[in-house]
Amino acid sequence: MSLLVVGSIAIDSVETPFGRAENVVGGAATYFALAASFFAPVRMVAAVGDDFPAEVLDDLRTRGVDLAGVERRAGRTLRWSGRYHEDMNVRDTLHLDLGVFADFQPLVPERYRDSAYVFLANIDPRLQASVLEQLYAPGVVGCDTMNHWIAESRPDLERLLERVGILVINDEEARLLSGERNVVRAARRVLQMGPKTLLVKRGEYGVIQFSANSIFAVPAFPLEEVFDPTGAGDCFAGGFMGQLARSGDTSPAGLRRAIVYGSVMASFVVEDFSHRRLQGLTADMIEHRYRQFVSLTDIDGG
Amino acid sequence: MSLLVVGSIAIDSVETPFGRAENVVGGAATYFALAASFFAPVRMVAAVGDDFPAEVLDDLRTRGVDLAGVERRAGRTLRWSGRYHEDMNVRDTLHLDLGVFADFQPLVPERYRDSAYVFLANIDPRLQASVLEQLYAPGVVGCDTMNHWIAESRPDLERLLERVGILVINDEEARLLSGERNVVRAARRVLQMGPKTLLVKRGEYGVIQFSANSIFAVPAFPLEEVFDPTGAGDCFAGGFMGQLARSGDTSPAGLRRAIVYGSVMASFVVEDFSHRRLQGLTADMIEHRYRQFVSLTDIDGG
Repeated sequence: MSLLVVGSIAIDSVETPFGRAENVVGGAATYFALAASFFAPVRMVAAVGDDFPAEVLDDLRTRGVDLAGVERRAGRTLRWSGRYHEDMNVRDTLHLDLGVFADFQPLVPERYRDSAYVFLANIDPRLQASVLEQLYAPGVVGCDTMNHWIAESRPDLERLLERVGILVINDEEARLLSGERNVVRAARRVLQMGPKTLLVKRGEYGVIQFSANSIFAVPAFPLEEVFDPTGAGDCFAGGFMGQLARSGDTSPAGLRRAIVYGSVMASFVVEDFSHRRLQGLTADMIEHRYRQFVSLTDIDGG
Repeated sequence: MSLLVVGSIAIDSVETPFGRAENVVGGAATYFALAASFFAPVRMVAAVGDDFPAEVLDDLRTRGVDLAGVERRAGRTLRWSGRYHEDMNVRDTLHLDLGVFADFQPLVPERYRDSAYVFLANIDPRLQASVLEQLYAPGVVGCDTMNHWIAESRPDLERLLERVGILVINDEEARLLSGERNVVRAARRVLQMGPKTLLVKRGEYGVIQFSANSIFAVPAFPLEEVFDPTGAGDCFAGGFMGQLARSGDTSPAGLRRAIVYGSVMASFVVEDFSHRRLQGLTADMIEHRYRQFVSLTDIDGG
């Protein structure tokens, strides 16, 4: 089944304790689409400036990503530069230039409107809502957001959340959204806002899923080197939604397996700068790491 | 099989965001013994002052804890007081009075010397070594330590680690001991020092186990209220070693199941101040929570 994503495409400059990468591919929708493309056809809604490298778009097309919804406009692509601390759970934004993204108004192409699987990456909740309004009958709606919208656009965000099935945020965002420090209490509050499923991303500690009747926790894959955490959360969402779209299985066990596929994709992308690690990836490598996750978490294994 | 523990018995005063408890039972060996007593007979080597409440020792005896190795001396019992932050992963020690523990010299009673399962709770590594020397043939040796000994008594600690099978420390201690920030690299270094198994306690994120050929990660049990984290690590070790002694199963799967039992005991003790939550606990409640851990982590469950 086709999977639509709306969000940012960016040009990033990143510095980590392991080195730096300048003017590399970034943006939540880009990471999401690359990760999801291993699982299902992806439809993208985004905007780039006239400075965006054509070969990156060509690469996405080669991977089965439909770019009919990617508007190319005069001006600069969104640019972000950031620096990660020694503790790579912490980063500083050094510079942000919204470029053509500043007045982005997502327009869903006619042929995307039947999309059954939708992911609303982190953008203004009013724009996220406008994408939903342009779709006929989105069945599985995933959504991300960030501190900025939680603090500054809460009414818009709360209206949106009533229409979101699966919210994918990090622990800090869950605390801010709920006003609760404890993650279990935070989750209970968030589930009252609309989502049937909450996925809380905890960086190097993995992901914890809450729904009305169950909790599922999966650790992050233990890696000896994390080169660049940028895009980990978006690749998680891409693998997760991609697997749901591929399998059509949104049963409790289907959701859990999708969470593991998301964790697999996140574990790959952090092994190199930008999206480089995804370039050489194969389906076999993804399945191999999935089995490693099974072995990592199986109480009766070892 | 009998399980010997050496370590501290203390009187604690604790303040958390949920309240305070003054002059309550504390100490690593106490928490360990209480948790382990649900699984196997425990033999304790420790020291208390003449101010230590007799009813606490009576309670331990009732639970099958052998106190022949607990020396009662003139003077004060070790007293610790601490305050936990809003983020309960962080605590300040407000006051520490070693009392009779200052010149504690562990003496292993004759009838303990055949102990096959031994846990060296956090004390001076020279004292931990002296306990091993008093035993005939300890088969399964677990060990904890802390920043102070890693920084101040490294040669003694390194000599001890050559004789330890299972090291149980937290993530900060693993970093300090190894000089590596990344937990996988830290574990590889620690495994070169002697232990065949390293268990890294990560507080609210659970435990990760490293051995030469495998990694196992289990989350902490998601709790709505954590009243008092004191003793969580010691109850983890108690449940873990207790299950090993009960089952005699130190196969890879046996170790994993013991790690889950340890996590079960840690999840209970933090639900109330001091050791109160362990008082009313039953074997059924432990088994029930064990099954909840299975459901929490089973990729194909839900």
